[in-house]
Amino acid sequence: MTATATPETIRERREGAIVTLTIDNAPVNAMSATVIRELRDALGRLAVDPAARVIVFESAVPGFFIAHVDMRLGEQMDVLGPLSESTPDGTNVFQAVGEQLRRQPQVTIVKLAGIARGGGAEFVAAADITYAGRSTGQLGQIETLMGIVPAGGGTQYLLERVGRHRALEIILTGDAVDADTAAAFGWINRVVPDDELDAAVARTARRIADLPDGVIAATKRILQPETPLKGYLREEEEWAALIKRPAAAHLMSRSLKLGAQTVASSFARGRSPPHLPACESIIRGGQELIATREICHVEVTHYRAAGGTPNSRVPRSRRVLLSLAVHRPASRGAAPETFLARPRGSSCTCRSKAAKTGHPRS
Amino acid sequence: MTATATPETIRERREGAIVTLTIDNAPVNAMSATVIRELRDALGRLAVDPAARVIVFESAVPGFFIAHVDMRLGEQMDVLGPLSESTPDGTNVFQAVGEQLRRQPQVTIVKLAGIARGGGAEFVAAADITYAGRSTGQLGQIETLMGIVPAGGGTQYLLERVGRHRALEIILTGDAVDADTAAAFGWINRVVPDDELDAAVARTARRIADLPDGVIAATKRILQPETPLKGYLREEEEWAALIKRPAAAHLMSRSLKLGAQTVASSFARGRSPPHLPACESIIRGGQELIATREICHVEVTHYRAAGGTPNSRVPRSRRVLLSLAVHRPASRGAAPETFLARPRGSSCTCRSKAAKTGHPRS
Amino acid sequence: MTATATPETIRERREGAIVTLTIDNAPVNAMSATVIRELRDALGRLAVDPAARVIVFESAVPGFFIAHVDMRLGEQMDVLGPLSESTPDGTNVFQAVGEQLRRQPQVTIVKLAGIARGGGAEFVAAADITYAGRSTGQLGQIETLMGIVPAGGGTQYLLERVGRHRALEIILTGDAVDADTAAAFGWINRVVPDDELDAAVARTARRIADLPDGVIAATKRILQPETPLKGYLREEEEWAALIKRPAAAHLMSRSLKLGAQTVASSFARGRSPPHLPACESIIRGGQELIATREICHVEVTHYRAAGGTPNSRVPRSRRVLLSLAVHRPASRGAAPETFLARPRGSSCTCRSKAAKTGHPRS
Repeated sequence: MTATATPETIRERREGAIVTLTIDNAPVNAMSATVIRELRDALGRLAVDPAARVIVFESAVPGFFIAHVDMRLGEQMDVLGPLSESTPDGTNVFQAVGEQLRRQPQVTIVKLAGIARGGGAEFVAAADITYAGRSTGQLGQIETLMGIVPAGGGTQYLLERVGRHRALEIILTGDAVDADTAAAFGWINRVVPDDELDAAVARTARRIADLPDGVIAATKRILQPETPLKGYLREEEEWAALIKRPAAAHLMSRSLKLGAQTVASSFARGRSPPHLPACESIIRGGQELIATREICHVEVTHYRAAGGTPNSRVPRSRRVLLSLAVHRPASRGAAPETFLARPRGSSCTCRSKAAKTGHPRS
Repeated sequence: MTATATPETIRERREGAIVTLTIDNAPVNAMSATVIRELRDALGRLAVDPAARVIVFESAVPGFFIAHVDMRLGEQMDVLGPLSESTPDGTNVFQAVGEQLRRQPQVTIVKLAGIARGGGAEFVAAADITYAGRSTGQLGQIETLMGIVPAGGGTQYLLERVGRHRALEIILTGDAVDADTAAAFGWINRVVPDDELDAAVARTARRIADLPDGVIAATKRILQPETPLKGYLREEEEWAALIKRPAAAHLMSRSLKLGAQTVASSFARGRSPPHLPACESIIRGGQELIATREICHVEVTHYRAAGGTPNSRVPRSRRVLLSLAVHRPASRGAAPETFLARPRGSSCTCRSKAAKTGHPRS
Repeated sequence: MTATATPETIRERREGAIVTLTIDNAPVNAMSATVIRELRDALGRLAVDPAARVIVFESAVPGFFIAHVDMRLGEQMDVLGPLSESTPDGTNVFQAVGEQLRRQPQVTIVKLAGIARGGGAEFVAAADITYAGRSTGQLGQIETLMGIVPAGGGTQYLLERVGRHRALEIILTGDAVDADTAAAFGWINRVVPDDELDAAVARTARRIADLPDGVIAATKRILQPETPLKGYLREEEEWAALIKRPAAAHLMSRSLKLGAQTVASSFARGRSPPHLPACESIIRGGQELIATREICHVEVTHYRAAGGTPNSRVPRSRRVLLSLAVHRPASRGAAPETFLARPRGSSCTCRSKAAKTGHPRS
């Protein structure tokens, strides 16, 4: 499929044989239909460009590599439709992303310095090599929390890399997995200190790009991947059955309504989500949480005064945040999980905003 | 097979969708025919109970999860016989335990806070997820030390999880493997600090149990295990040939005669085995050893005086234990391995018992 | 194939059921045609010796286990030819080494206390069990740096042990991999402190050798390896196509011309290569580099005076080595990589040799 316009979400730059594709779809690099199309175009074009030997994937959005597949894909059928009609036999449009990566002639390297969840984690697991920053990189296979299952190849790629027992744990808990654990599991190649990530990726890309002619292609042919056709079919069948259920529709629509993407992106940009006070404590607490939780909705549950008296009636100027309640998307009517999210040394300085919105439970 | 009486060895409790099965077959949770039958009954009943979503396995016996298959199974044919006649095609009664676990609709989680060896290690490797306590959890595939081979699926589950090179090492050394090494190998999912194990298992169980309807079953169908039929047959053939050999019969009968289960269980309960003096040093030395060795027989080889003179003729009241000799089950006539097992700060206070039995080599 | 003469490169000693084969082909234990023939003879003889139960492989050459396949094999066709004509169907003479190891009745254990690269790394990955010294053991799959691909089974053994993503990274970077990383990847079984390696290997060998009759053979039959025939064929095809290319011939001939084996072996024996001054700093710097780099050619690029002034004109007696430039074999015309290789506390004491050869860039 030819690109007839300047890409909106994938920027390309080139240094000799090394191509860098930068994903830029603020606020969280959701994998929208446009991202899928522009990836497919770029990879398709590079597949027949023998001068390109290595492709590095990185993100322009701080804190996120690819947060997840865009929950608004249903509104993007004009773009998604044609993509879905031209996938390899036996694959859906998301598995086709993985298949294209796995069969790409170039060596594909992901520089993971942010969150990759759902379809983003599938992307990482389909690429040849991934290096993650120790505290910045993070993975999570979160589909079950939304009432569905991974259906972009993720179950198969995880099975291949970490084994059935860890694949089940990762998929069924939907937990965020930090870079050290991901490397220990074999989900990614390596974890490196945050400030060494750029250099590590650049060195490996350069070393591989400098190989003599024919060697990369020969190696990739010897180690060509198998296509897990039976697994892809199972993913598609199970996903199709679950997506019809009220729970999935409800969870995804509730998630959208509560603005999951807005909540996470607000915190990522150092702001409070619109429905909360613009309070430093809340912002920092929220930032700590998005590093470890799939946030659907956040509310401040209570304050305590500096010095330790919970819930006392003290002037707002002396209150600090004690906790943020996070509604996990798949809670089946259960009480929201409450996390202690008190930024170190924080104090609440939100007198002005509070006067307008009112702190809950003051 | 229906249970017509209250289970003796498997206790069940339930908290919503989470079922906990507690294995209680003191002194060491040997996997007896009754344990096998009660497990099969419980799992069979739960398999058709859609309200149950997660099964957690734990032990009521401190220090042990499942020490090994009961060496007295030959005396339990009234129970074992019927179980052996109703196994899936191509499996023996031990492999059937593994197959049932692997195909169980619920997610199975083992809380490993004790020793799991032989058939116990096979049970762990057949369950979906295992978390182990850092110093309490321990695994070992010890069948070769008894002159046979694992024949309950263990060779296949190890091959799947840790690879051929580590499977060979684990099976042929029969060594005890601590929780950190087991996690690094991928034999289990995770190792956690001892005091965090309960919470970690509970959290994962809760998180999975809270998933929307249909998601667990869908995920388990996508990631259904393969049945390693060829491997099961090879296990059965090789085991059947070895069990006929004099060595195996001799080792197992010697092990029973010397009371391996009695020795280990005595130490586990803070007592000296009947054939040794009731001496604090011996008890503590033995407890250290059972954490790391498959003990067949223990004898005290010599004393040294507090302060460092080996083997001197000093009054018993001033002697401390220097070493325990452990006869490893499969030693082919070799001298017993001697371990330095001197509990820190111990002194021998067994004047009274010694007067009756006499310390060896006084 | 019967050995009619005393082996030149493989020494054998025996202690009961444990056979130790010591590889001794100074200066770097290159895998020459003679080494291949003598290994094949020894393993073939031992395969029908039921009293032998364990084979330990070690090296007599400090710093090296098997540095790589001998680059002069083309000159050894009188020995290599007959070996190549008698390989198992579908394998070349190098894959036949791996196949023989994998199917050997005895348990094979590699004691890795040196560098194993290329064919040496393939040997390690084909053996049953490998323990490596933490700072002495090292692996590398370096064929791509020479313009070819591993064709001795290495791609398949790596795929089996570390997964496709890490196999691609290891093979395409050709990087030296230290023992801790190799163990974390699962390439080898274990890493142990250098001073514990002998004891660890001896203990495991003894423990396995002491198993009752029939147990080792039974276990190895249950866990017999698959023969990756398709992968072997792909290796052979791709290698055969690449070896014809000018680049490969050039790189290997250049490597030979510059005396890669001579450079590395000189440093390993505590000497400067013939084309460099006989200077302590150079020797120590070179020794540090051969532990981490595939050295093709070394030149001293500049000096700095003790105390910090780069490139000043100071008397030679006060100069210390600042860097060694290493030409990586596969650099496609790029500038040589320069490494800081200044041995701690070194000072240059080469007044006499310098007078004869002259230091570069004095």
